[in-house]
Amino acid sequence: MTILEGRKLGFEFFVLEEDPNAPACRVSDRCFLPGQVEEFSKLCDVVTYEFEHIPNEVLERVGYRLTPALDVLHIKKSRIREKSFYAKGGYPTPRFTYAKGKELLQACQSFGFPLVLKRDRLGYDGKGQYLVRSVDDLREPMEEYPEDLFLLEEYVEFDFEYSVVGVRDKRGRVRTYTPTVNHHQGGILLYNYTTQEELKEGKEITVSLMEDLKIVGLLAVEFFYAKGKSLINEMAPRPHNTGHYTLDGSFTSQFENLLRAISDLPLGSTDLKAPSGMVNLLGLSLEDLDLQELLSVEGSKLYWYGKEKRPRRKVGHVNVCAQTHEQVREKTLHILRLVYHKAQV
Amino acid sequence: MTILEGRKLGFEFFVLEEDPNAPACRVSDRCFLPGQVEEFSKLCDVVTYEFEHIPNEVLERVGYRLTPALDVLHIKKSRIREKSFYAKGGYPTPRFTYAKGKELLQACQSFGFPLVLKRDRLGYDGKGQYLVRSVDDLREPMEEYPEDLFLLEEYVEFDFEYSVVGVRDKRGRVRTYTPTVNHHQGGILLYNYTTQEELKEGKEITVSLMEDLKIVGLLAVEFFYAKGKSLINEMAPRPHNTGHYTLDGSFTSQFENLLRAISDLPLGSTDLKAPSGMVNLLGLSLEDLDLQELLSVEGSKLYWYGKEKRPRRKVGHVNVCAQTHEQVREKTLHILRLVYHKAQV
Repeated sequence: MTILEGRKLGFEFFVLEEDPNAPACRVSDRCFLPGQVEEFSKLCDVVTYEFEHIPNEVLERVGYRLTPALDVLHIKKSRIREKSFYAKGGYPTPRFTYAKGKELLQACQSFGFPLVLKRDRLGYDGKGQYLVRSVDDLREPMEEYPEDLFLLEEYVEFDFEYSVVGVRDKRGRVRTYTPTVNHHQGGILLYNYTTQEELKEGKEITVSLMEDLKIVGLLAVEFFYAKGKSLINEMAPRPHNTGHYTLDGSFTSQFENLLRAISDLPLGSTDLKAPSGMVNLLGLSLEDLDLQELLSVEGSKLYWYGKEKRPRRKVGHVNVCAQTHEQVREKTLHILRLVYHKAQV
Repeated sequence: MTILEGRKLGFEFFVLEEDPNAPACRVSDRCFLPGQVEEFSKLCDVVTYEFEHIPNEVLERVGYRLTPALDVLHIKKSRIREKSFYAKGGYPTPRFTYAKGKELLQACQSFGFPLVLKRDRLGYDGKGQYLVRSVDDLREPMEEYPEDLFLLEEYVEFDFEYSVVGVRDKRGRVRTYTPTVNHHQGGILLYNYTTQEELKEGKEITVSLMEDLKIVGLLAVEFFYAKGKSLINEMAPRPHNTGHYTLDGSFTSQFENLLRAISDLPLGSTDLKAPSGMVNLLGLSLEDLDLQELLSVEGSKLYWYGKEKRPRRKVGHVNVCAQTHEQVREKTLHILRLVYHKAQV
């Protein structure tokens, strides 16, 4: 999506990918395998990323060239480091501690149930996460990862989840997008929509994090909203699934603003053009969708990534715009029902 | 632009082009030369076009497969045929007649000055057109094209020019986009912006023309607005320069709706998301543009086609959105000044 948005600006795109059939490769000027990282790096004026879990052998060779810079990836490599970063900066985030191996049981008992257990490393889209209501729920993680370090996090009974996507350029100019209310299922974003709630606290925290981290590019921050307060759940220094709506809903998409930021062009307006929502297409093939129905929803647009169907894999999304926030929420829920009326998500 | 919009829908694109470096080739899955038209045709499920002046040898081989169908291209091949089509259908259009060779002088004198002389064939972007105020102005066209058939057209003192882009699908469903006020220079569109004038007559004529021509795809109709009436100037059965604003200003772009129409998907909303304007970048290189200034205009977006600079060549455009029609008109004029402050257009 970054490439498609950047074509308009006249940029050329080289992609470094393990899979030459990946969607980004199909729309790039040239696709390089990880073994070709040196050649790739030489040809690029700027190098950015849309995935944090970059293999070490790639990072060693191209890491110094990354925008946003490596520091934030270093923090993101460990959940405990990420949480400690929030705590150290005085940012609101759910209470946490950490433990591993045989200490885990004792640590959980002292921390108190219910809690959320997360592997310190390699987790995303809900992988390596466990809701632990009692000692019994500890069996699975302890058997599966007997040696792993775990983050223990307070289980927050939130009113809703939301996120803010922000962008910051080399000169330190910042902008934030309209927040969205997000609905996850099994740790994966299922749908979201813009809200008329101002959620000023979330925007301020996002700006402050971008400044602390000296981000040049995007930072998406996910929050729990509970008892009138915003608590940081996590952050991601790249185009974010909850910001896909900006392709249709905002004056400038998150993808174009990433490109503007890293190539020293003025940031584009992040204002809302129309209230917007998004439904992720998870684990589906095109044949599973009734496109006649889906695209008949006034204001809806299909984004199909051309990926093979696999259980719960993100294979596309549907954006929808409307005149009001209330309308767009209804349309989003309507599309959700159309997409998943037969299938179990 | 059609390809970039269609990527989102998951389509594959094959392009037939004389120039393998053409922008469409650079973003297509595969580019074919005119000599490869049979192979090209075999691989396509649907064949459409974004240029009417398709060479006969190509039309002979792939013409029967075109959407919109060949009939409209046949009409468009001759300006006299096009005008006669309007007259026969009872559509309002400036008064006209035709003549060639030695009869031209006499015909012009009987028709009355001022008049506009247009070569019957091969004219676009103002090429082969002459404003004739007196017999003297006839020398150039008569010397340059001594044997050619010419259309003689009444010179209309219009209040403004505008256009309507419409879309019609196989099932006969139609939609029209918000009209734009257009400003040409030397026969080439220089800039345009959406208007709050309803211009109902123009929309009705566009729908009626699409139905008469059984268009499946787009039809753009350009009008003169004079003395409270809309007169058809010309039409084009393809994505239109005056509809480039729809990429940012409309719920669904003209390009996506073309693809939806020809692939039997439901038409997308043509509603206005935000008042919009566009400035064509003519005969410029990227270095001629001050991107810092241009992209600092709130709501502006650059579309750079990656074409080589040639005098008056369309090498890109700038779209701009705003909250009101008045604002967008001002922003469009501001961008116009930024782009052309040094250069002569």
